[in-house]
Amino acid sequence: MNESEGGITAPRGVLAAGVCCGIKKTGLPDLAMVVSEREAVVSGVFTRNRVKAAPILLCQERIVEGKFSALVVNSGNANACTGQRGMKDARQMVRRAANLLGRPEEQVFVASTGVIGEPLPMEKISQGVAMAVEALGKDQGQRAARAIMTTDTFPKEAAVSLVIGDTSVHIGGMAKGSGMIYPRMATMLAFVASDANISASLLARSWKRAVAQSFNRITVDGDTSTNDMALAFSNGLSGCSRIHEGSREHLLFQEGLNWVTSTLAKLIVRDGEGATKFIRVEVKGARSQREGELAAFAVANSNLVKTAFFGEDCNWGRILSALGSSGASVRPEQIDLFIGPVQIVKKGVGLGKDRQPQVKEILKEREIELLVHLHQGRAQTEVWTTDLSYDYVKINASYRT
Amino acid sequence: MNESEGGITAPRGVLAAGVCCGIKKTGLPDLAMVVSEREAVVSGVFTRNRVKAAPILLCQERIVEGKFSALVVNSGNANACTGQRGMKDARQMVRRAANLLGRPEEQVFVASTGVIGEPLPMEKISQGVAMAVEALGKDQGQRAARAIMTTDTFPKEAAVSLVIGDTSVHIGGMAKGSGMIYPRMATMLAFVASDANISASLLARSWKRAVAQSFNRITVDGDTSTNDMALAFSNGLSGCSRIHEGSREHLLFQEGLNWVTSTLAKLIVRDGEGATKFIRVEVKGARSQREGELAAFAVANSNLVKTAFFGEDCNWGRILSALGSSGASVRPEQIDLFIGPVQIVKKGVGLGKDRQPQVKEILKEREIELLVHLHQGRAQTEVWTTDLSYDYVKINASYRT
Repeated sequence: MNESEGGITAPRGVLAAGVCCGIKKTGLPDLAMVVSEREAVVSGVFTRNRVKAAPILLCQERIVEGKFSALVVNSGNANACTGQRGMKDARQMVRRAANLLGRPEEQVFVASTGVIGEPLPMEKISQGVAMAVEALGKDQGQRAARAIMTTDTFPKEAAVSLVIGDTSVHIGGMAKGSGMIYPRMATMLAFVASDANISASLLARSWKRAVAQSFNRITVDGDTSTNDMALAFSNGLSGCSRIHEGSREHLLFQEGLNWVTSTLAKLIVRDGEGATKFIRVEVKGARSQREGELAAFAVANSNLVKTAFFGEDCNWGRILSALGSSGASVRPEQIDLFIGPVQIVKKGVGLGKDRQPQVKEILKEREIELLVHLHQGRAQTEVWTTDLSYDYVKINASYRT
Repeated sequence: MNESEGGITAPRGVLAAGVCCGIKKTGLPDLAMVVSEREAVVSGVFTRNRVKAAPILLCQERIVEGKFSALVVNSGNANACTGQRGMKDARQMVRRAANLLGRPEEQVFVASTGVIGEPLPMEKISQGVAMAVEALGKDQGQRAARAIMTTDTFPKEAAVSLVIGDTSVHIGGMAKGSGMIYPRMATMLAFVASDANISASLLARSWKRAVAQSFNRITVDGDTSTNDMALAFSNGLSGCSRIHEGSREHLLFQEGLNWVTSTLAKLIVRDGEGATKFIRVEVKGARSQREGELAAFAVANSNLVKTAFFGEDCNWGRILSALGSSGASVRPEQIDLFIGPVQIVKKGVGLGKDRQPQVKEILKEREIELLVHLHQGRAQTEVWTTDLSYDYVKINASYRT
């Protein structure tokens, strides 16, 4: 497996575009398109928020068929909480793209991200779709990655190549998201393309696994959104032989998919709204996977823990407190806690102030590792999060203005 | 029922003190004492965090007997995650008070609040306890309320008087807490005294009810702490006749208790760390009480909702998104939402931008009412919360420095 340049257009037969059509007041790119030259198989994971945006509802209908030709995405407006009109607009957005591309409407997917509750400016979108079709190109992947950004400060792309048989296979993707990131995805869009030859059902299983170990491991502020989706499609244009479940080739493919998704997930956390730190929270010795996740996310979502990291303050009591109210079965007198390589809590008790200068140095780093050992079982898990800074408040207090 | 001046010393035979013994680096009061001249019945509610501070463990032992003589509280150090030493220190703190007061050790309660993970400075505490015994007085209630403060910016007291038979009965209390406030209590201490004549078991039932409708209705940041407790004691010194369950007198007593606890709870929210707004979130039409609470707390705990309120931004989409991921069974197309008297969402769809100027004015207020109608059932609930400001981050990033 080799890391490669580029993103969503790295696989053969995948084109992209990103254009400015005036949805964002800033004049920045706000409409992206991705097209597969050949009909592809597709799999999707969607937000579990009960309030689902129109594009989510439409894609959920479409994913059943499992065929992909193109994707159109707008940023700046989420087309959520827009009722019947929102559904009509999403359909029209798709129809417009299908007509201009000459592809079946039911193979065109749609996504939106941005402010909730305002109708899409359909005239601008319609123009934007036409501009995107014109702009489609192999070298337009990053432009597309820019066009799906909202509060993101940089575009997020990742790509790998693998050799299956004697054929080069490519997997590449793009994502957006920098706040409202919480497991089972949150204001997060991720699109991954591949030119592998794989069945729809095997792609679906592989995609679920890849999402579980990447986008479902991250949190910025514990909020989940109305618009999240992660789509993967594969068009077979690499010319490689068919990938069968459990084969060496399948493992290789899965590894590539995992790398692309976890790279994108980490980029999202690194770009967390106002984040100054990337924090890896590892929990060992949990009674079950579920309990490990409860514990890890309780720490990763605690505002008190996150503000302490922002302040570079070794306030480990807040971490123990978060574990205690996580819902996981923890026994305080058995908890060990490490910040970086330094153990600061042993069997629930602090190891003294003399270790604090060392920890203080670690807390100045931009990347911090936290290891919690619960000593209750054998399950382990990790999640990735950020600190909570003034800028988080600033960005979110004035998002729409 | 009449609101009255004062706090914990409003009932007959209750004395208090608050002194400075040097636990806090600031030199502010940090040790409080409350004494009942006659042995009282007592009831308590304690944190559900699995990581419990030493004073919590000690009081949980003591509450079984149900007898109260005195209470000693320190601020500046939580005596949590301090292992066996912490238990020994808590016992010693109690023994010292019991000896100086000449009261049975098992009737003396203890509470601590402040930084987690550091041993109590026992020499200072020991001196402080002696000073407090000297300082005990009827007029020292507010001084005690000050001595239990941590990041609080003002002392929190409330008192009422009621007439039972032809006797005046008093209920008065004090509380601390301004962050880490989440239902089932969080870094929150509340102590309520009464001179009513009531059995231990009836006091316990009444106290549970009072706590449920007050301290369990508030949230500042969704974190629960290791040290929370709410204690009520009643010494019968008013000379009123015995209060029997279900009687008119009992209803009156409950009403008084509810008023004192909800007043204290609201004061805690008003003093929420960095808070600029007091927000009442009312949920109607929930399928069950439990679902109503899930929905209300999901809104009240969402960082995105809270930062939008800080920014006085009518970003109602975030409220719908929080409802959608709350775990309550909501149907987006049936949700109505009001900010103050203005309906801004009807059946899940925004009612248009023309209402926004009106809402903008409401959002400038210091107190904001939010009404969510789910139209799924008949249960309703309300919770009280704050916005999330720069100052919340500031206070919590540098709490220990």
